[in-house]
Amino acid sequence: MTYKLVLRESHKDDLVIDVNGVEIGGEKVVIIAGPCSVESLDQILEVAREVKRLGAHMLRGGAFKPRTSPYSFQGLGEEGLKFLSIAREETGLPIVTEVMDPRDIPLVSKYADVLQVGARNMQNFTLLKELGRINKPVLLKRGFSASIDEWLGAAEYILVGGNNKVILCERGIRTFETHTRFTLSVVSIPFVKKLSYLPVIADPSHATGRRDLVIPAAKASVAAGADGLLVEVHPNPDQALSDGPQSLTTKEFGELVREVRRIAEAVGRSL
Amino acid sequence: MTYKLVLRESHKDDLVIDVNGVEIGGEKVVIIAGPCSVESLDQILEVAREVKRLGAHMLRGGAFKPRTSPYSFQGLGEEGLKFLSIAREETGLPIVTEVMDPRDIPLVSKYADVLQVGARNMQNFTLLKELGRINKPVLLKRGFSASIDEWLGAAEYILVGGNNKVILCERGIRTFETHTRFTLSVVSIPFVKKLSYLPVIADPSHATGRRDLVIPAAKASVAAGADGLLVEVHPNPDQALSDGPQSLTTKEFGELVREVRRIAEAVGRSL
Amino acid sequence: MTYKLVLRESHKDDLVIDVNGVEIGGEKVVIIAGPCSVESLDQILEVAREVKRLGAHMLRGGAFKPRTSPYSFQGLGEEGLKFLSIAREETGLPIVTEVMDPRDIPLVSKYADVLQVGARNMQNFTLLKELGRINKPVLLKRGFSASIDEWLGAAEYILVGGNNKVILCERGIRTFETHTRFTLSVVSIPFVKKLSYLPVIADPSHATGRRDLVIPAAKASVAAGADGLLVEVHPNPDQALSDGPQSLTTKEFGELVREVRRIAEAVGRSL
Amino acid sequence: MTYKLVLRESHKDDLVIDVNGVEIGGEKVVIIAGPCSVESLDQILEVAREVKRLGAHMLRGGAFKPRTSPYSFQGLGEEGLKFLSIAREETGLPIVTEVMDPRDIPLVSKYADVLQVGARNMQNFTLLKELGRINKPVLLKRGFSASIDEWLGAAEYILVGGNNKVILCERGIRTFETHTRFTLSVVSIPFVKKLSYLPVIADPSHATGRRDLVIPAAKASVAAGADGLLVEVHPNPDQALSDGPQSLTTKEFGELVREVRRIAEAVGRSL
Repeated sequence: MTYKLVLRESHKDDLVIDVNGVEIGGEKVVIIAGPCSVESLDQILEVAREVKRLGAHMLRGGAFKPRTSPYSFQGLGEEGLKFLSIAREETGLPIVTEVMDPRDIPLVSKYADVLQVGARNMQNFTLLKELGRINKPVLLKRGFSASIDEWLGAAEYILVGGNNKVILCERGIRTFETHTRFTLSVVSIPFVKKLSYLPVIADPSHATGRRDLVIPAAKASVAAGADGLLVEVHPNPDQALSDGPQSLTTKEFGELVREVRRIAEAVGRSL
Repeated sequence: MTYKLVLRESHKDDLVIDVNGVEIGGEKVVIIAGPCSVESLDQILEVAREVKRLGAHMLRGGAFKPRTSPYSFQGLGEEGLKFLSIAREETGLPIVTEVMDPRDIPLVSKYADVLQVGARNMQNFTLLKELGRINKPVLLKRGFSASIDEWLGAAEYILVGGNNKVILCERGIRTFETHTRFTLSVVSIPFVKKLSYLPVIADPSHATGRRDLVIPAAKASVAAGADGLLVEVHPNPDQALSDGPQSLTTKEFGELVREVRRIAEAVGRSL
Repeated sequence: MTYKLVLRESHKDDLVIDVNGVEIGGEKVVIIAGPCSVESLDQILEVAREVKRLGAHMLRGGAFKPRTSPYSFQGLGEEGLKFLSIAREETGLPIVTEVMDPRDIPLVSKYADVLQVGARNMQNFTLLKELGRINKPVLLKRGFSASIDEWLGAAEYILVGGNNKVILCERGIRTFETHTRFTLSVVSIPFVKKLSYLPVIADPSHATGRRDLVIPAAKASVAAGADGLLVEVHPNPDQALSDGPQSLTTKEFGELVREVRRIAEAVGRSL
Repeated sequence: MTYKLVLRESHKDDLVIDVNGVEIGGEKVVIIAGPCSVESLDQILEVAREVKRLGAHMLRGGAFKPRTSPYSFQGLGEEGLKFLSIAREETGLPIVTEVMDPRDIPLVSKYADVLQVGARNMQNFTLLKELGRINKPVLLKRGFSASIDEWLGAAEYILVGGNNKVILCERGIRTFETHTRFTLSVVSIPFVKKLSYLPVIADPSHATGRRDLVIPAAKASVAAGADGLLVEVHPNPDQALSDGPQSLTTKEFGELVREVRRIAEAVGRSL
């Protein structure tokens, strides 16, 4: 058996995870927005204020960045975490940020409200095991070629350690298609929700890799039952140090919130 | 250049195709429903009445069936077409049915309102060329491993012959995922609509292959901008001669219509 | 059941198909070489003489070409077939050429020694059924996204009609890889040979789409048990009307034959 | 730029890595064999003696095992490393074993001659960076959905730290095919060897997941230019604690060596 604790059989109701007052997995669809990378205090403060004003419930931003090339910007590290916590203080938005190294868990936990495991680390079992022993929610991205079994198996590694506050995140799979960076596997969302009681959100930014497709991908995800969205927003995407082409401007993010709200209501939820 | 006639550059507005009074590509989301195969007059009449009553705008049903095995049910042929036309007479629903052999185009045209090209024939260029010379709408399914370029190139083969009444249909692509028969590439819908002025619909039945995932796939497709849905419905799926596991019961189809209507309204359209 | 006639259970020994004295499926590894398209009498004669001199056993060349775009060169049609037959007359090399339209089977049969079904037509069941009624060998390419079941099911359509002279051809599958046009699924060769008694050859030209990778792909295929190779050769690849980037020069083809011969001998066969 | 140090431009000749007297990347094709997991001292000693006798040049065996499920056997840890080193003492075979946690690098280095990075950790950048600072060869498996760019980018992470003793290993990619566990991308071997000066080996066991296809996959890999093979061998595959279905018996391994030797000679190399 690959997993059992993640299954509906082991938990009566859908899990609702409380993140400093923001509930994920409940009636409300949760919007987590922010830049790919924290680049400076000014940048993160500006984005945080804007996305808060436009309707986001949580703030995302990377301080430790997994990059395909060693020559790409690797993130600000602890400084980035500090900037995030300043942004939280000002806006009240809880923080989601990635942890890549098990040795950084105490450091990242000190600042973050939710610790993210990136797609490339979905089967970094060392990392998963240690996240099972902390008392903070974990956002577990699906590996871009992970089967549902492998994804739920990865979640099980966290649950088996005693931490069941796991948020699953569909972020696109790798297929033969090249017009988008990945292929949003939108049907995986209701499928996983049938199997598991854990909340499932979607990342339309990484799934598409193209700004002009993020909004329809977001709407499709919520229509299919996603409990939330993880969206990249940058005040000036053309100057972003990472993922510029898929980052929404704040204006576009406002549109996303308005359009997704109508879809949320159509499926009996709210934003 | 692979194509030009299919592009927005060559046609000012979205194309609205009139099928006996049902408009595809306009404000309304069009529901095309019916069994995978026409199995008997009774069966097709029963389905046609039910889907009509529950809100379908057109009737689908296969008389010529492309089957992986030569030992599987191959369809009733012309008799199936006759049964479809009797169902149309009674219900008023226009008919969509597949043509596999270019030599059958005159026969199928005699009965059908829309001629369907199946995914396996998307690059049957002989068939496409001859469909370019008729004056009836063609529903062109995306091959399950076709790139967007290949799909639009296939449409171009029809347009270049003089027939631009082509309805594109996303029906799931083949990926490494095994929990569903195919992977609905929901983002391809808005992407193709950006490139082309042709209407784009979705087939949530083939995309998922599982009854319990058809409704969320349908909702996601309409949220992403689909102009219509092609849905398999069978009065008794367990006894269907083909595609039973992915066919909705009429009761489930009623649910689909209700839920999709709300999504359609959320994106400013109606059913 | 998808198929039975193609299975080893239904035929004691490996099938050896005699094509005008060239045996496919026997001890010898058969090399089929020639241009993607027949472009002129001079071109096909030049290639035929060269590949014959360098060790080819059969000549390939397309007269009816399935092209992604309607604006690409579609082949010379019957004139191309005539040129091929003139080349056969001069060199003695049997001819393999594609048929796309069931109505062309009598015409193509008049000239060709082996009728090829292209990857895009692998599930053109109308075509397959009619090829089951002729008395000439059929080279059945694997669809680039066909499962083994679908491929053998397609072969079964031919066998069920009474023609068991089917040569299977692995020509690369579509995957996420982009450095090659397709991904040669080399292990499919021994896998299919375990299941079926039909000969299996490989097409390293389409599988890679790159001249510089054709030779290693050819060697790998023969090492894995392929009964033959289908290779694109053009006297002047840069001026080819189709598939130039993957066509070998005659000099490179000579190298391929030399290197493949050593592999053939290493697996107890000859060229 | 994703990488530069791994490219041929930065190193005149093919890199030959000396592992206790065994050269990888030179004229000889290197065979690395052993069980998936070290299960007991007796087991590893028995396999080591047998594979040595039959022609292997190095011994593989996992002490830290990345497993999809937390309930699967996770390896013997340091005890397994000790057993491996006892087997090395007796047979003289250098040891390859996996490291999953950057904190285990000093421990694993104490015992292993080559440290392996598994497919699931190919983009565990923390691990890669620290392996760049040691002075031992690293066997870097391709992630099963990694593009060539991502694979070479991962190698670059190691090289940039100062350690260029990296052995690349193609181990099959994830595709739509289900008859094998993964699809051996055999053409990636010559492609990567064109780009990079690093040695490239193949893992026919993981690529196929089926004992009966390991030998043809191994032969194809060497025919395509692989510098070595990583093969799972178990004295009693049916009782293996992991990967039984793809492990060769020692008898089958003897066959593999004999058959691969002939292919090696056909490409101008030896075993």
